[in-house]
Amino acid sequence: MAQPGDKRKREDEVENGGAGESVTSAGAEHPLSGFKLRSVLRESARDKTIFLHGQVSDEDAVVILERAPFQADTVSRLLADDPTLRLQLKNDIYGVYHLSPPPQLNEVKATIIRPATEKHIKKYLRQELQLISETGDDYRSITLPFIQSQSFSIQWVYNILEKKAEADRIVHENPDPALGFILLPDFKWNQKQVDDLYLIAICHPRGIKSLRDLNGDHLPLLKNILQEGQAAILERYGVHGHQLRIYLHYQPSYYHLHVHFVALGHEAPGITVERAHLLSDVIQNLELDAQYYRTRTLTYALRVDEPLLQRFRDAGRG
Amino acid sequence: MAQPGDKRKREDEVENGGAGESVTSAGAEHPLSGFKLRSVLRESARDKTIFLHGQVSDEDAVVILERAPFQADTVSRLLADDPTLRLQLKNDIYGVYHLSPPPQLNEVKATIIRPATEKHIKKYLRQELQLISETGDDYRSITLPFIQSQSFSIQWVYNILEKKAEADRIVHENPDPALGFILLPDFKWNQKQVDDLYLIAICHPRGIKSLRDLNGDHLPLLKNILQEGQAAILERYGVHGHQLRIYLHYQPSYYHLHVHFVALGHEAPGITVERAHLLSDVIQNLELDAQYYRTRTLTYALRVDEPLLQRFRDAGRG
Repeated sequence: MAQPGDKRKREDEVENGGAGESVTSAGAEHPLSGFKLRSVLRESARDKTIFLHGQVSDEDAVVILERAPFQADTVSRLLADDPTLRLQLKNDIYGVYHLSPPPQLNEVKATIIRPATEKHIKKYLRQELQLISETGDDYRSITLPFIQSQSFSIQWVYNILEKKAEADRIVHENPDPALGFILLPDFKWNQKQVDDLYLIAICHPRGIKSLRDLNGDHLPLLKNILQEGQAAILERYGVHGHQLRIYLHYQPSYYHLHVHFVALGHEAPGITVERAHLLSDVIQNLELDAQYYRTRTLTYALRVDEPLLQRFRDAGRG
Repeated sequence: MAQPGDKRKREDEVENGGAGESVTSAGAEHPLSGFKLRSVLRESARDKTIFLHGQVSDEDAVVILERAPFQADTVSRLLADDPTLRLQLKNDIYGVYHLSPPPQLNEVKATIIRPATEKHIKKYLRQELQLISETGDDYRSITLPFIQSQSFSIQWVYNILEKKAEADRIVHENPDPALGFILLPDFKWNQKQVDDLYLIAICHPRGIKSLRDLNGDHLPLLKNILQEGQAAILERYGVHGHQLRIYLHYQPSYYHLHVHFVALGHEAPGITVERAHLLSDVIQNLELDAQYYRTRTLTYALRVDEPLLQRFRDAGRG
């Protein structure tokens, strides 16, 4: 989603890579000169990434290494001309080998943050998670006061709703102030392919902070978002509603009601059962019990260093 | 979970790799001799894997390539001695480079299945998914008759419950025939570290096929599984209940009620919102409405080639 702040935007640009490429100039200091590893902050065997804290010329640095995805148009060259294979296992029709491709077909992307502050290092440090079971009373006595004390700015959301920003990105709008919403692409999606299609519907009415504020009165709004959002995505992108995972987050990342529309095959962050709530389930639950989300115990994960978790612990509930 | 059949076991062995390693013998035919790429069956940019269908000496072959995870103990060597970096982007403290590591630190795992049958090729072909919205009536008129027509064998489940198999693997049992269950490690978990802890609770009562069969009478059983399962895992593995994602699948992979206990930080397959149902939510829903899962529209994804989806289409519901 649209996010305020320069920091986030700069990181997005880094993530997406620049337009041109050049070679490190010979005269400059090597960006990893004398690199000393201090610690492994995090690693993912699945993603083939590793996050390192190290020192370069007495400066702290964070180095993120990620192996390259395979490319359909160059993969044949990996297997051509009888490449050297080291056998690991052979069993009937199955064989497992180790292959050492030529370096140009086997690059590693290295992101270097230098000098890195304590905050950078902490950001990439693997954080333990803990589940919270938030009762309706917990919400009112712990979570709501916490949200109010943080005074998170959502001016950027109001800018979108008032067409002061991102007006050219709007895919669909229902302008009704009580039952309407704006649908636009999430910033995580580059809009180049529908495999990872990701849009956000932001509701026009203000003051609905999250799932917790929903009641039976909001059913027409939610049904508009579901039906019109699906129709607009079918018309614009040719993707059917049954190919979309449509859900809310609890906790959300900002406290103005919004709904995620994501390609079913795309493993976006935050689609796990303890964070995502299918909009179709939310509608059914409110039809069953208009107060469902006011009384319900909601389970979600917090990082152990998040201030909200400390509030729960202070209250003897974490 | 324990799975019947030799095929699965053989594949597990291949996945986990063999104990020893050797080098391809010089005299034998090269396993990729004259490899011709026919098609890319599937690829994952996130996992750095690609699944290929090709031909080797007129035989069909499936080749699965996967880049190696980074290893904490060798990663320093990648960054030592001022390796050649190709600059992609530099912005303030952020730099993105391409690094070409020496081949021995940058292997690719190649799994070769040869000769591959049509079935192998289809197995690895990327399958489109489609969401189904299954009403209670759909369940009774489409899904239940389909399940009954398949006569899936769950003898292996009964073998566990009767201690005819895997008795030495049991972590906890409540032997009550109506309110009891057996907890044991899932086969996906090698039990060497708790990061990816994965256990399954299999209920003693028979005939509860899935979530759909649950009603208010099952609350004591479900609460036993939740409470005793958490306590047993804390005692045996030192992992607290608030560090466990505890859920059921719908559709499940076999039709005898079972509950997954998985480390919260482990991104196991099937933890997404359209497949997993938190046990704590299931309990609350049944307390709210004893018939919740008989009447509820449940949303889940099917591969477009699954026979159940065809049943829905035949009924005009897919």
